[in-house]
Amino acid sequence: MPELRKDPITGRWVIISTERARRPTDFSHESTAPLGGGFCPFCYGNESKTPPEILAYRANGGGPNTPGWSVRVVPNKFPALGIEGPLLRQGDGIFDKMSGIGAHEVIIETPEHHTTLAMQSEKGIEDVLWAFRDRMLDLKKDSRFRYVLVFKNHGVAAGASLEHSHSQLIALPIVPKEIREQVDGAKQHFDYKERCIYCDVVRQELDSGVRVVAENSDFVTLSPYAPRFPFETWIVPKQHESRFEDSPTHAFENLARALKLLLTTTDQVLEKPAFNLVLQSAPLQEPSNAYYHWHIEYMPRLTKVAGFEWGSGFYINPTPPEEAAQYLREAEVEAPVAVG
Amino acid sequence: MPELRKDPITGRWVIISTERARRPTDFSHESTAPLGGGFCPFCYGNESKTPPEILAYRANGGGPNTPGWSVRVVPNKFPALGIEGPLLRQGDGIFDKMSGIGAHEVIIETPEHHTTLAMQSEKGIEDVLWAFRDRMLDLKKDSRFRYVLVFKNHGVAAGASLEHSHSQLIALPIVPKEIREQVDGAKQHFDYKERCIYCDVVRQELDSGVRVVAENSDFVTLSPYAPRFPFETWIVPKQHESRFEDSPTHAFENLARALKLLLTTTDQVLEKPAFNLVLQSAPLQEPSNAYYHWHIEYMPRLTKVAGFEWGSGFYINPTPPEEAAQYLREAEVEAPVAVG
Repeated sequence: MPELRKDPITGRWVIISTERARRPTDFSHESTAPLGGGFCPFCYGNESKTPPEILAYRANGGGPNTPGWSVRVVPNKFPALGIEGPLLRQGDGIFDKMSGIGAHEVIIETPEHHTTLAMQSEKGIEDVLWAFRDRMLDLKKDSRFRYVLVFKNHGVAAGASLEHSHSQLIALPIVPKEIREQVDGAKQHFDYKERCIYCDVVRQELDSGVRVVAENSDFVTLSPYAPRFPFETWIVPKQHESRFEDSPTHAFENLARALKLLLTTTDQVLEKPAFNLVLQSAPLQEPSNAYYHWHIEYMPRLTKVAGFEWGSGFYINPTPPEEAAQYLREAEVEAPVAVG
Repeated sequence: MPELRKDPITGRWVIISTERARRPTDFSHESTAPLGGGFCPFCYGNESKTPPEILAYRANGGGPNTPGWSVRVVPNKFPALGIEGPLLRQGDGIFDKMSGIGAHEVIIETPEHHTTLAMQSEKGIEDVLWAFRDRMLDLKKDSRFRYVLVFKNHGVAAGASLEHSHSQLIALPIVPKEIREQVDGAKQHFDYKERCIYCDVVRQELDSGVRVVAENSDFVTLSPYAPRFPFETWIVPKQHESRFEDSPTHAFENLARALKLLLTTTDQVLEKPAFNLVLQSAPLQEPSNAYYHWHIEYMPRLTKVAGFEWGSGFYINPTPPEEAAQYLREAEVEAPVAVG
């Protein structure tokens, strides 16, 4: 069973895999191993090579764990946390730990091995977003879970270990530090101003326009004022909503449009970069609120995070967001051929 | 002039380089470029190719910016922050920014191009540590600076852009988030228990021994209880001291011994990994205190930080610190030939 352990100084929790520990030599040269080539457990016909599916969308029916699906969600074969068992909290001398309870799932975004998320049709991307929502609503019923983080690693430099396009989610028994800080920061602003800070940001950004990349009726895509990474970009709903999973139907359609435009644009401007996508939404078991505002963060992996950042939590960004937004806004995107 | 900008939600500051902005194509394939080969500005005879030196140790005299030095400190040719000018704080609509005032220096650790820090003699490493201290004491006199972060990036995967062994320091006009959290966390513990949390950790770790890698009369080298990264290792002074720069002379000698042992051991066990080293010390302009405890953090870059970590601030570590400590403790290290 993995363990959650708390750093006694900063209060930061980490997940320690105590079962399938990695030995020193396991890391050697791992990062240079090529992805793909050979067998892929996410392709049609290989459904039995993943753990049994949790959810799948099949337009024409068909039995579970058989081909015919468009999106398929399975447990991660090598989960960071275990789904079974009680949530035990325990001291360890002066330290604190918790049993490593959680869910770790893989959202296989398409049956097509070589179709990236950017290459999918808007409808295909929308289906992936609905799968995120369906899984969040289901995992929310388990009162052990306080947060579900949905994320995507695309490319080796972004931490992907399989080439076939997929996202992941991890359900956690605690609200993670980054989210807690966002929620608490937003609450402070609300307590003082009685306004949502993200709504304020959207308003100012749409007024000035300098950091706006794109917009549609439901979303604004923007370079944040203080981005950690060059070309970091957020997609923020224009209407206040603290929880992604509570979004109205038209928001899924427009989010898919916004996401497809962002991914095709960055693929062109940044030459198909490795990237991470993360969905930031309010904690599961807390009521919907007026101060937090869900959004998506896109972070291309263009630079190395180095000692200064690890030691300080302070980031050096060599591209001003105004310039990044302009490059992305002015790109003449040739939409790739839609698939699926 | 670079800018410091504050994220309005989390309060996290970032440095935005507004002068020598990087364009999209500047990032392409940069990470695969080989280091070294050709001209090195840090080698003997090329002193005129760096900005004029700030500090150098020369056993046999000799003029500034000429060969004969063992350690040499120069301004970074491409500084993240600018040293000149007043510290202006300014609003930008709902956002906050500050002029990008600070110092960014390079500590060239040896004149020998191919000598890594691990390969240096203990005396050579000690000289590097004295250079850190001398620069901190000097920068502290400038009241604009609240913090000096000393760090080392070794290897391309750790963010190094030059092969010749060097460390860096950045002096900042604010106390960075990671340090603020450590100091505040330590203060909370002290307020409650009237003890330093790091002293408590050292005591418990020396008692149990399971996470101890090595010790000498002044330092314990240990795997922390909740490490973010596999084989993350800290070197912590046994005697309480909040500021590195106030350490007694014998501590420099013993820190050099501890650091050489750690670097030669990890070079062997982890097969010469890329790594970051960061020196964590109390804020410059705050008085020495009973609750914070300076230390060095060593982080080999064995795994990729991915979407989950960026989105949550939560780390997944595949190697329990007890196992990491055992591998490092039990390694039979052949000390490399000392140089310098």
